[in-house]
Amino acid sequence: MIRSTEPAGLLGARDEHLYRRVAQRISDLIEHGTLRPGERIPSVRKLSLQHGVSTATVLQAYRFLEDQGKIEARPQSGYYVRMRRWAPPPEPGMSKPSPRAVDIALSDLALEVIKAARDPAFVGLGATMPSLELFPLRELNRAAASVGRRFPLAANSYEGTPGNQALRVEVARRAMEAGCTIGPEDIVTTVGATEAMNLCLRAVAKPGDVIAVESPTFFGILHIIRSLGMKVCEIPTYPREGICLDELASRLKRCRIKACLFTLNFSNPLGSCMPDEKKRELVRLLSAREIPLIEDDIYGNLAFGPARPKVAKAFDRDGLVMLCDSFTKTLSPGYRVGWVVPGRFKARIEFLKFVNTSASPSLPQMAIAEFLKIGGYDHHLRKIRRFYARQMELMREAVSRVFPEGTKVTRPTGGMCLWIELPGKVDALKLYRQAKAAKITIAPGPLFSAKQEYRNFIRLNCGKPWTDEIAEAVGTLGQLVRLQM
Amino acid sequence: MIRSTEPAGLLGARDEHLYRRVAQRISDLIEHGTLRPGERIPSVRKLSLQHGVSTATVLQAYRFLEDQGKIEARPQSGYYVRMRRWAPPPEPGMSKPSPRAVDIALSDLALEVIKAARDPAFVGLGATMPSLELFPLRELNRAAASVGRRFPLAANSYEGTPGNQALRVEVARRAMEAGCTIGPEDIVTTVGATEAMNLCLRAVAKPGDVIAVESPTFFGILHIIRSLGMKVCEIPTYPREGICLDELASRLKRCRIKACLFTLNFSNPLGSCMPDEKKRELVRLLSAREIPLIEDDIYGNLAFGPARPKVAKAFDRDGLVMLCDSFTKTLSPGYRVGWVVPGRFKARIEFLKFVNTSASPSLPQMAIAEFLKIGGYDHHLRKIRRFYARQMELMREAVSRVFPEGTKVTRPTGGMCLWIELPGKVDALKLYRQAKAAKITIAPGPLFSAKQEYRNFIRLNCGKPWTDEIAEAVGTLGQLVRLQM
Repeated sequence: MIRSTEPAGLLGARDEHLYRRVAQRISDLIEHGTLRPGERIPSVRKLSLQHGVSTATVLQAYRFLEDQGKIEARPQSGYYVRMRRWAPPPEPGMSKPSPRAVDIALSDLALEVIKAARDPAFVGLGATMPSLELFPLRELNRAAASVGRRFPLAANSYEGTPGNQALRVEVARRAMEAGCTIGPEDIVTTVGATEAMNLCLRAVAKPGDVIAVESPTFFGILHIIRSLGMKVCEIPTYPREGICLDELASRLKRCRIKACLFTLNFSNPLGSCMPDEKKRELVRLLSAREIPLIEDDIYGNLAFGPARPKVAKAFDRDGLVMLCDSFTKTLSPGYRVGWVVPGRFKARIEFLKFVNTSASPSLPQMAIAEFLKIGGYDHHLRKIRRFYARQMELMREAVSRVFPEGTKVTRPTGGMCLWIELPGKVDALKLYRQAKAAKITIAPGPLFSAKQEYRNFIRLNCGKPWTDEIAEAVGTLGQLVRLQM
Repeated sequence: MIRSTEPAGLLGARDEHLYRRVAQRISDLIEHGTLRPGERIPSVRKLSLQHGVSTATVLQAYRFLEDQGKIEARPQSGYYVRMRRWAPPPEPGMSKPSPRAVDIALSDLALEVIKAARDPAFVGLGATMPSLELFPLRELNRAAASVGRRFPLAANSYEGTPGNQALRVEVARRAMEAGCTIGPEDIVTTVGATEAMNLCLRAVAKPGDVIAVESPTFFGILHIIRSLGMKVCEIPTYPREGICLDELASRLKRCRIKACLFTLNFSNPLGSCMPDEKKRELVRLLSAREIPLIEDDIYGNLAFGPARPKVAKAFDRDGLVMLCDSFTKTLSPGYRVGWVVPGRFKARIEFLKFVNTSASPSLPQMAIAEFLKIGGYDHHLRKIRRFYARQMELMREAVSRVFPEGTKVTRPTGGMCLWIELPGKVDALKLYRQAKAAKITIAPGPLFSAKQEYRNFIRLNCGKPWTDEIAEAVGTLGQLVRLQM
């Protein structure tokens, strides 16, 4: 599955453009039914002549489609359109959370789900953990060893706020891809996006204030908000396009919302991605009311398509958007290197960073800066994007095969979470406990709302390489769901 | 100055015991006036015969005393009792802060002082920064490279709460020296003691609650408390023995104190060290009222004497003491590895750690665990203790020489801060600005109290190796003080 990514790395940018065009053509033919499931697709030589490209390029296109699960190789026989043994199940509708600002009532389940993710005794479909098997760990650790050897003093001193200069230069450079024009001086480094979001919330709100969030939203975010003594107002959210702006506008009128905390690109658990134009509108809506937007973009680089979406920060003219990000989902969870682009709140964020952790560790920041400078991050990102796209497809297919009729499933275009609406009667918390007894972890829906709604929803992690063990676990889950009906 | 520490490293534990005994004898003779300033001390050979030890041991004792500034070598002539060109100035008395619980009013000066510490253009006597020149940076970075190479997956994964197991094993082992019997499961690792104190405060108090602190106390602590919306009640403190327990008892009756946050061993800025028996009494006093004690022990290992003092946690029977510590002042500021022993609040601390930074970076924790396992930390600690003792003595001597009469100076027995009471008329904030113009940073007294008291006090950092530049800076400070009189 990974094999085919190596040749891609050897192709130049122009070749990559070519093979993707060829792949797109074939994909269109499949989508429109011209090429039907089980049908042999034209030979490499034929297509190469037809499109005026090299056979290597065509082969690359085939392997790309194979990775996407659209075609399959049969020994000694060529490539065939993959048999569709499944029809994509319907999607959940827009969420309808409680319209009032509420205190957050959460169980200890969240920490249990996170801890089980590290327990090898479980098939871990609960936490959204990236697949470190694919990550350039050795290269990164080599970069750490190298900077430690070359700069022993810097690696052991603390640079203090706003954080490592070399890292901020690299982060600023990469922000261009997300549509942001910023400099190193606009960035404050943090211990992961978690600390970044904490600092942002503390910078603009105080205990008792109301924070607007997507519904459903990542339980970690709810926990952070609750731990700071704040309330949430959950905004109705579409599984594809993110929050409903009309609903947000009406909530802004009724609740005293102090700030918004949204994951606009491949939100967790919905996988929704707000179109860039809608982001512009969102920023306008909030700016007009002087309401800060804390933007969590940790999944933005995990788009399945060829280009990543923009961030709302790209449309920020008033310094009201505070962009939070990290390398946790794309390079190294353990390095805990995150950052915030705090706009007009920079002085306050620097102060809060100083009182919260004094400074971020120097060595991990320096190591990541070095790794980014050397190059190879983009290649790595392309690799894991293809990987997650494929994992997501396999998980969706498996779920559609083994879960009962009435199950609804999201269609994420990035990230690694699948959000599943089970038939109405099914109790996700009961399912969680039954699954746990069968040594499978899942994240039950009630974790993702302040009032423990989404009682018949679950989130599955699609970040792990597909194995028979996972296939079997999904089968078990399907049986458990049926037993509840 | 450092030269003499190498032979110590070659001596076994028994030899070290011997040379320290010899040094103590000579020291006693000097203290009691039997050996007078300028007098030649007995020859190596003579003492070696007299005490029945090797000449190497006697030489080592001499070098130790030389490092402590008690004797000096004269070329071709032997060792002499050092001329006392200075009489130790008087000490400040017990502090008398405002008796009420107050909101904290702080300026932006604190961040300015911290930032100037990293600016090579300044002679940095402001921040308390350890001297990395003495630290085993290469060994530590080598340990990081080694664990990264051997355990690439672990170094990049996050272990989550309660933190790296190997590190917790080492920390638990070392806690014995401070009188604590704890296991790895009693520890939660953090990003420095700063995060540890944050988590502790959030675990036991909420905005509006009152926290008792020493007076004066480290401005970082005041900033943390203020950033959490809490108030402080400053407790009168003796410059040698720490807080006055009677005053604390009376404050406990009058103010609704929710928790105490004390630096009992070599507090910053006083350098006070509470005797162990008094710690026992303190713990009893607070336990009787069910008041948690957050104990900051980051300087505890920097005792100038042969043994380190105990921690209050050693006397804790009710799980009410939350011990916070880190390797920042003894091994590496930049690694940001700290921990907390949270007693009965462990579950709450684990939750807060999860929401504050998710987890501490793995690589720095693993590297320090590896370094501690290999050994050499105790040797390093002995080295820096001698070094700081010497630096403190040199600074005290210089201050007593160049500051005007009426100046009072603390007599710390550990740590790296010197707290100076200037004659009443002198304005420390004005002095700070004048010193800054002369490219010298100091920490003005008002930083160390909630109501900006201590207007005629300053704190000097004694952590740096003594140089002509520092001597000159102290001279300039003395002149500036005189000009204000």
